[in-house]
Amino acid sequence: MTSTATETQSAKKVGDQAAVRRVIDQAKRDGRSALTAPEGKTICDAYGIPVPGEALATSADQAAQQAAGMGFPVVLKIVSRDILHKTEAGGVLVGMKSEEEVRRGYDTIITNAKKYNAKAVIEGVQVQQMLTGGQEVIIGAVTDDSFGKLVAFGMGGVLVEVLKDVTFRLAPVTEEESMGMIDGIQAAEMLRGVRGSEPADRAALADMISRVSHLVDDFPEIAELDLNPVFASAKGAIAADVRIVLDFAQKPARPRPSKADILKSMNRIMKPKAVAVIGASAEDGKIGNSVMKNIVNGGYQGKIYPIHPKADQIMGHKAYKSVKDVPDDIDVAVFAIPAKLVAGALTECGEKGIPGAVLIPSGFAETGNEEGQHELQEIGRKYNIRLMGPNIYGFYYLPAHLCATFCTPYDVVGHAALSSQSGGIGMAIIGYSRSAHMGVSAIVGLGNKSDLDEDDLLTFFEEDPETHIIAQHLEDLKDGRSFAEVARRVTKKKPVVVLKAGRTAAGAKAASSHTGALAGNDKIYDDVFKQVGVIRARSLREMLDFARGVPKLPTPKGENVVIITGAGGSGVLLSDACVDNDLKLMTMPPDLDAAFRKFIPPFGAAGNPVDITGGEPPTTYKNTVRLGLEDPRIHALILGYWHTIITPPMVFAKIIVEVVEEMRAKGIEKPIVASLAGDVEVEEASEYLYQHGIPAYAYSTELPVAVLGAKFKWARGAGLI
Amino acid sequence: MTSTATETQSAKKVGDQAAVRRVIDQAKRDGRSALTAPEGKTICDAYGIPVPGEALATSADQAAQQAAGMGFPVVLKIVSRDILHKTEAGGVLVGMKSEEEVRRGYDTIITNAKKYNAKAVIEGVQVQQMLTGGQEVIIGAVTDDSFGKLVAFGMGGVLVEVLKDVTFRLAPVTEEESMGMIDGIQAAEMLRGVRGSEPADRAALADMISRVSHLVDDFPEIAELDLNPVFASAKGAIAADVRIVLDFAQKPARPRPSKADILKSMNRIMKPKAVAVIGASAEDGKIGNSVMKNIVNGGYQGKIYPIHPKADQIMGHKAYKSVKDVPDDIDVAVFAIPAKLVAGALTECGEKGIPGAVLIPSGFAETGNEEGQHELQEIGRKYNIRLMGPNIYGFYYLPAHLCATFCTPYDVVGHAALSSQSGGIGMAIIGYSRSAHMGVSAIVGLGNKSDLDEDDLLTFFEEDPETHIIAQHLEDLKDGRSFAEVARRVTKKKPVVVLKAGRTAAGAKAASSHTGALAGNDKIYDDVFKQVGVIRARSLREMLDFARGVPKLPTPKGENVVIITGAGGSGVLLSDACVDNDLKLMTMPPDLDAAFRKFIPPFGAAGNPVDITGGEPPTTYKNTVRLGLEDPRIHALILGYWHTIITPPMVFAKIIVEVVEEMRAKGIEKPIVASLAGDVEVEEASEYLYQHGIPAYAYSTELPVAVLGAKFKWARGAGLI
Repeated sequence: MTSTATETQSAKKVGDQAAVRRVIDQAKRDGRSALTAPEGKTICDAYGIPVPGEALATSADQAAQQAAGMGFPVVLKIVSRDILHKTEAGGVLVGMKSEEEVRRGYDTIITNAKKYNAKAVIEGVQVQQMLTGGQEVIIGAVTDDSFGKLVAFGMGGVLVEVLKDVTFRLAPVTEEESMGMIDGIQAAEMLRGVRGSEPADRAALADMISRVSHLVDDFPEIAELDLNPVFASAKGAIAADVRIVLDFAQKPARPRPSKADILKSMNRIMKPKAVAVIGASAEDGKIGNSVMKNIVNGGYQGKIYPIHPKADQIMGHKAYKSVKDVPDDIDVAVFAIPAKLVAGALTECGEKGIPGAVLIPSGFAETGNEEGQHELQEIGRKYNIRLMGPNIYGFYYLPAHLCATFCTPYDVVGHAALSSQSGGIGMAIIGYSRSAHMGVSAIVGLGNKSDLDEDDLLTFFEEDPETHIIAQHLEDLKDGRSFAEVARRVTKKKPVVVLKAGRTAAGAKAASSHTGALAGNDKIYDDVFKQVGVIRARSLREMLDFARGVPKLPTPKGENVVIITGAGGSGVLLSDACVDNDLKLMTMPPDLDAAFRKFIPPFGAAGNPVDITGGEPPTTYKNTVRLGLEDPRIHALILGYWHTIITPPMVFAKIIVEVVEEMRAKGIEKPIVASLAGDVEVEEASEYLYQHGIPAYAYSTELPVAVLGAKFKWARGAGLI
Repeated sequence: MTSTATETQSAKKVGDQAAVRRVIDQAKRDGRSALTAPEGKTICDAYGIPVPGEALATSADQAAQQAAGMGFPVVLKIVSRDILHKTEAGGVLVGMKSEEEVRRGYDTIITNAKKYNAKAVIEGVQVQQMLTGGQEVIIGAVTDDSFGKLVAFGMGGVLVEVLKDVTFRLAPVTEEESMGMIDGIQAAEMLRGVRGSEPADRAALADMISRVSHLVDDFPEIAELDLNPVFASAKGAIAADVRIVLDFAQKPARPRPSKADILKSMNRIMKPKAVAVIGASAEDGKIGNSVMKNIVNGGYQGKIYPIHPKADQIMGHKAYKSVKDVPDDIDVAVFAIPAKLVAGALTECGEKGIPGAVLIPSGFAETGNEEGQHELQEIGRKYNIRLMGPNIYGFYYLPAHLCATFCTPYDVVGHAALSSQSGGIGMAIIGYSRSAHMGVSAIVGLGNKSDLDEDDLLTFFEEDPETHIIAQHLEDLKDGRSFAEVARRVTKKKPVVVLKAGRTAAGAKAASSHTGALAGNDKIYDDVFKQVGVIRARSLREMLDFARGVPKLPTPKGENVVIITGAGGSGVLLSDACVDNDLKLMTMPPDLDAAFRKFIPPFGAAGNPVDITGGEPPTTYKNTVRLGLEDPRIHALILGYWHTIITPPMVFAKIIVEVVEEMRAKGIEKPIVASLAGDVEVEEASEYLYQHGIPAYAYSTELPVAVLGAKFKWARGAGLI
């Protein structure tokens, strides 16, 4: 279900919106941002969020009936403006456990009250539900600058506050998502009943989370909401206290073009028929020269229009003084001119009707020149030009052999689309890709993200048949909500890997001084990425390894992973890595175990890992891997190779590729990764395996398993396993 | 303070051993393994472990005095065998808060009792300390098969049990170590006072932990001890409940030769004057042939005696039928014969007086042949031969150019001594070392560890001047206690890195099927490693990177780390990595900030990271790095390089090495690591930096910082910073 569908539903079904609207409007008229307790209760009632029942009874029978309705035990309290000291007057009775007790209690209280003050005007008796036992939890909602409304769930109490055991999701959430929140905290086990205690009614909790999420989604004015504590017991969940803070000053939404508009512009920018290079130069060392060289020598087949105030031609291409002088249509203009000239040239692009500008120049927001950047945004919006940058290296789109960048050219065409907010990271992407022969569809610099950002790229790459995986380095999200909504859709089709820099407080501080971006609470990023199926890379290398390896692997059809290893020691480390990467080692069925045993020495280990032992000939690897591929109960293989004279590295690599291809011919495809332990020849063997679709690493047991783990994470998020 | 010193002290000072001995002896006589509550209290009293005070008073004044002694509030209870229902008799008063109250309470109780039963014989009034408030914690002790007595500390309550927030240390512990335990749990903040609550008396808790640790250390019969809960408040710590389990069946200790004996044998094994190769062969493809080739071609300068039933000479060396036929002394015999022949040949080695046997052959415990391995152990003990293996690749000792192994030879002499329990991991060590040009002093296979194990190697490498760092892969520790005691000493001099495989339950299962080793509770390994200063590697690559990088770095003189980066994006990721690796980013003093600013563009970022911005010439790197080295307030530098035309990779690398050498000539040495973002030329530049003492990585922001973090961890553990 998409977010939009959920929203529509919520409007129809979840709450009594009119009742909430009345409360909020009253507060607005009063100029209040905080709501009173009765107002809080009204809102909870309107959205079916259970709060302790309370009612005024004017007869013993009515009190009994009310108490039965809200559930026992209850507290009874005299209500009379003439009786201030209720307890002294014998006007309070706690722990009434049955209708009968309530009936008698009612009478006792009235009698006591009359005894205490014969003249008192008695309005009745308040019946209040008593909250006892159960587990204290917290349900809340906050408004994040980037992600908007988020619902939160955690265990209650000081201890958990210290441990920060809380989880967030974009609001609204489905019941399934809210159940995921309840299972997603560290202390989740507490609610399933520990040490013989009764399990809490998790469905009731999930329902409450979901209702809160719809409430804040329906009413943007609700800036903060806290149900703290909520008592969760086997009988249900009740919020003992409600705190609501309103904010009537809504911040302006970042403009969001439609998907169709994004695709229209992005297709022209990434796959242009004609490119203008503003500031093209024939002079070595100039950025405008590097850009021209990269476009021309990179093999781009479209039209190239150098723009230069004086030159007649540059690198064999006729030059123009302005884009407006070019007789043809232009799809994208690459800027390689000083910052102060950008606005003027951009206006000319607008007048020419160019839909995209690649703003390489620096000297804007990153140097404090917010005004200059704002000016570019205004021009972009006026003329409907999408802006990439400023302060970027440009972009590569490999299927079109287009290197619209001042960096070194790149030509290994493949299926990974990468982007980076930072130029340095962009250079690392290029270097790693070249070194690892990683096939790439695109590399894009986003820099200051004055306009185009990660969700625009996601939208384009989603539809780009050349792209099979999207990997993005980012320090902030200008519009996290939009990113999340697009990512939720895209991750159903293609893996999206994100390296979110500024994870730590120190990192976030560095990020904010670097780009002026305010790095959000990292836990929110973590939770939202999981919610929308984004795979989070923990390091630069991990992002790069995932981008390289994940698209090589076919999608697994189930969770059963088997390790086949020649080195028992690797088997142990590979098992550790499986746990670290949420992979499930298959419990080996006896018949399959027996089948494997036929191929391995009698002292080889049973079960999983299948330890074929060192010193085995190539056929042992071949037979066991073939069996692993053939048996439909196994969904993925991890191979641990041990360099021996009997089975040298390349012999191993070739025999594995042979088996895999033999099986592929029979229509059997499963993800396989390999860890190679041995002398330096294992590097060549790993490379051979990698080039044949088997992510393989020398001297590492953790990297191949991390790559496999990423594929599984994606497949689970996309609902494929 | 060494463990032995602590033990001696404890015997003298901590507890009344005679009192505890009496209780334990009585239990032994009774055939009981569990102690009664009063026995538990006696033991606690003997070791000064506070339990709730209780005493019998026979006068109001005495009761008041006793109460004052144990602290208020107290409970008073009538003591009379004639009064069973104390409360009914008015014989119980709780919450007595002063001497006066106690005095009056005493009289009230006696009066009530007499009223209730005039004939009752009244023994007096029991005064019992009441435990109120404070934080519940758990202090305990367990006996681990490998590590022996361990003391444990954690927060109390079900929730923390669910979160498994508990920490262990080898007993006994110093007060400093026990304070470290209190600070070492996730919920540590709870005891420092949160939300305005009073902080607990942490010193009292630390004292209690320390006393428990001495108690279990003094009495090996105490198998388990639980103080649960302990109430910790501002006023102190009191154990509300004591549970003690005894075990009189002590397991036999693994033999532990003295340090002198270990060194004597190990020196002859690792640096032999004469080596015998039992099963030496001239035939290609045989293990005995590979071993001979490696020893001869590896450049070993000592005497080589091939042992072969028939051959006269092998590879130019005179062969003998038995080691007993060799006219000279032999220091070490390398076995390359089938398992069934090993015992016989080993006996001959014993008769010859050879102190060391390198048992390459497999076919022992790892294949279920426990008996065969036991036979070797018996022979070894009988003749005082130290056994390496069986089931190993052998060993390398590079300073002697000795490759006593059937694997490929290795000749890059350096200062890292590595070992592995598994042969596959050994091959990965060799491959990585060769690929990374890692200088090595030794690589040792330990295999089944029938005799020689990690602590024997630590003892040798501790004294080996050629070894500057020790890195060990292991799946279990046959004698964790001995390892920890040796490691505690060695880590004061040299970094010790351990990759403990079988971290996870799945990994441990694989480990146990692989070597028959029972992998221990991983949290215990984690805590004990920290306690004794061992750096734990989380992955194979990390162990290898630490072994390569850590010895390159000089020891830091303080905690202040500064990042200098050309790529702001790298700065953010490097900051994240600092937090991940427990490194402290220095808060930049204004004068130093101003000094850096002089060298960088006006829009470069202030503070730390020092963002010199991209596109700067080599002098900017040079000036800022020089300043970073010169200023004594900075203790370590992390460099982030961004590949540009203005400062190409090798220009950067050379200029950095130049500055570092210039400073070194002035006596200034600080650890520096570098992260290089750029095209493939950064690989060569990284290698150049590495070879010049600056651990540098291409396309990675996390690896260089992890290496620096490992150096800091070691320096902290060794008390150097």
